[in-house]
Amino acid sequence: MPTKVRDRLEAVLDAIAGSGAAAPTVMAKVHAQAARAAADAADARARLGLSLGALDGTLVSIKDLLDEAGEITTAGSRINRDLPPAKADAPVVRRLRAAGAVIVGRTTMSEFAYSGIGINPHTGTPGNAADPTRVPGGSSSGAAVSVGRGWADIAIGSDTGGSIRIPSAFNGLVGFKPGGGRVPTEGAFPLSYTLDTIGPIARRVADTVAADAVLSGVAAPPARPVAADGLRLAVPRGFLYSDLDGIVGPAVEAALGLLAKAGVRLFEVDLDDIVTLPLAIQKDVTITAVEAAHIHRHNLRDRAGDFDPRVLARIEKGAAASGATYVGMIRAREAAKAAADAAFAPFDALIAPTVPAVAPVIAELVGDDAAFTRANLTALRNTAIFNLFDLPAYSLPIEIGQPLPVGLMVVGRRGRDHDLMALAAALEPVLQPSPRTA
Amino acid sequence: MPTKVRDRLEAVLDAIAGSGAAAPTVMAKVHAQAARAAADAADARARLGLSLGALDGTLVSIKDLLDEAGEITTAGSRINRDLPPAKADAPVVRRLRAAGAVIVGRTTMSEFAYSGIGINPHTGTPGNAADPTRVPGGSSSGAAVSVGRGWADIAIGSDTGGSIRIPSAFNGLVGFKPGGGRVPTEGAFPLSYTLDTIGPIARRVADTVAADAVLSGVAAPPARPVAADGLRLAVPRGFLYSDLDGIVGPAVEAALGLLAKAGVRLFEVDLDDIVTLPLAIQKDVTITAVEAAHIHRHNLRDRAGDFDPRVLARIEKGAAASGATYVGMIRAREAAKAAADAAFAPFDALIAPTVPAVAPVIAELVGDDAAFTRANLTALRNTAIFNLFDLPAYSLPIEIGQPLPVGLMVVGRRGRDHDLMALAAALEPVLQPSPRTA
Repeated sequence: MPTKVRDRLEAVLDAIAGSGAAAPTVMAKVHAQAARAAADAADARARLGLSLGALDGTLVSIKDLLDEAGEITTAGSRINRDLPPAKADAPVVRRLRAAGAVIVGRTTMSEFAYSGIGINPHTGTPGNAADPTRVPGGSSSGAAVSVGRGWADIAIGSDTGGSIRIPSAFNGLVGFKPGGGRVPTEGAFPLSYTLDTIGPIARRVADTVAADAVLSGVAAPPARPVAADGLRLAVPRGFLYSDLDGIVGPAVEAALGLLAKAGVRLFEVDLDDIVTLPLAIQKDVTITAVEAAHIHRHNLRDRAGDFDPRVLARIEKGAAASGATYVGMIRAREAAKAAADAAFAPFDALIAPTVPAVAPVIAELVGDDAAFTRANLTALRNTAIFNLFDLPAYSLPIEIGQPLPVGLMVVGRRGRDHDLMALAAALEPVLQPSPRTA
Repeated sequence: MPTKVRDRLEAVLDAIAGSGAAAPTVMAKVHAQAARAAADAADARARLGLSLGALDGTLVSIKDLLDEAGEITTAGSRINRDLPPAKADAPVVRRLRAAGAVIVGRTTMSEFAYSGIGINPHTGTPGNAADPTRVPGGSSSGAAVSVGRGWADIAIGSDTGGSIRIPSAFNGLVGFKPGGGRVPTEGAFPLSYTLDTIGPIARRVADTVAADAVLSGVAAPPARPVAADGLRLAVPRGFLYSDLDGIVGPAVEAALGLLAKAGVRLFEVDLDDIVTLPLAIQKDVTITAVEAAHIHRHNLRDRAGDFDPRVLARIEKGAAASGATYVGMIRAREAAKAAADAAFAPFDALIAPTVPAVAPVIAELVGDDAAFTRANLTALRNTAIFNLFDLPAYSLPIEIGQPLPVGLMVVGRRGRDHDLMALAAALEPVLQPSPRTA
């Protein structure tokens, strides 16, 4: 007999309560009463043999940038604490509730979703689920840790430059960033209108597929399992595989060996001309920084002292950029997207390390701005490229007995998010022959 | 027996040759030999009873910002004369040729399409077809005059802020600006990526419908004539009807009387909150100026002295704008489009004077920058609003025996360009009870 949802929820609420000071660094808010009501409703449906679908009764956490009616959307900031509560649920939140999801609470995040590390001076920094002395990755930091700690089956995050994939990689989880426009971003506090996406973090690809169907409103087509054998994957040696650390490098090489053994055809190709385009286009300033400068124009004037200084510095850089520079970046991006589509066309997907390094130690970054900046650039290096190209991408855990989590990024083709899901499900077991040894 | 295309073409070539110094102010280039070949081919088809469609054998002029393989796209500038010839036809040019159009030549324009007046210091200013001492309107200046003088049946122009509708109004012609995205702008030298549109100028609505079908690649649906009787038109008194001059004001009032008599239902409404949004959004700088600053970033640095100073001044203003300001304008535009759609929803179309004044006298503007700026703002005042809203719009001639041409702008609903064409065809005869008395 399956465990009741209410029982699972109570176990989670107990675990959160029992985690002491760690709890508020992960959960910006716990919705105990509303979650109990939702859990009881799911159990009642189950007793009658009814179901609202794959997410009915699943425990879901949502990132603290998604509007919930009656809640303040703080987006990990001190500034937004002074906003009025949201008037309505974000469309994705409405869809989750309608699908029977039990929303456990709101998860912490990098301030305004603007960092890949996950250190937050306002809420405290959630410890990595695999090693609490290390950063969780960001910006969906609490999201990943909520799943890593078992406080949620699925976490809903957002990804503008890697904010779903990076914490998924750092915590040994599956993260899916959909292609742009697939999931509505209304009601999500924006970082970049152009690059923001919303997607799930979970333990298994199947859960991300179920979550995507609800978030996007597009049910997955009838299960069409793909065999790993014969898949054509690009392995773009060069920029994406450069400067890997002593854990990531061997883990990724081992993963390539496992894939080849499973019959995956790996094509070692030089795509550096393509994958370095986003860096070239944004060499002076980023699209995100300019759009954030618009979004925070009043905060820059009135509340500059209330920002995380590391976030403020990047937004101020965006504020200094000219309109002509921004227009040029947007135009160049369109050309780069077309170039990427042409270059990736021969392959089912492209694979590369999600992040070139394992999660850094919190204490080494908290007081050292230069180390933080280096670590942040490293965290975002590979992931942000595919936000600029606006392609769907997974981070899948590699589990070969190594001591810390490592993610393999799998990038799909434009508009073929479902194909990528099927492919990720085929690769998932191949990449996990043996658990990590902490 | 119908006149042969070749004979009509020869008459036009003779007329151009016979017009002396006026010719190069209208035609940047005449394609006599290629046009003869196209005309002969059309005549040969006609002899066999074959036709490529409604545009087969029509005499068409194209604005000097459209690429033709082997021709330099000068866009009315001195600067672009140093560019290499275009490698390929713009898609719209290719479509015109494939439809059997006889391309007579390339028409002059305001430098880089950036003025509603039509004065050009490099090519000379084409005299208005109704009164050569007056400006032709811009930026599709030579385009309108080529039709006004009978040198083309249809002129292909572009409209970013009114550049089809203004010269149509000033020359007593029909001009159609399609909704954005309907006609491909590739191969057209850009003024604003966001606001540029391509459309026809002709003597009759039917010719603009035929031209649009070719330019857009979307054939008109089976003729579905609309009766004027019972049409619901908004007459937004206020901003759009303010400060009309002594010819435009009475002509527009007379037109309203004619429409009412024909059974059109006129709803006098206050839409000032809506129609002034574009001005409010762009109070510091325009979207066009910022995008032009990107497009001309190298020219601003290397060729500033070769611009028309009146064009340069506006592009330099765009260069001074911040990226955050531009992002804010683009976002506000999206909200304004939604507001406009909601406000215009009760009506089949909205009508207003195309331009609040008749064409100014050339000599009064040539040496007086302040007078030019005033006249330019007046010319663009009503038209540019509907580029920002991205709605399809016609300028239709009012002919009530007045001494100079006056245009009535008819603005349609989003995505319903064909409905607007049918509506314009119904209004056209109502607005022309008696010819102008020059």
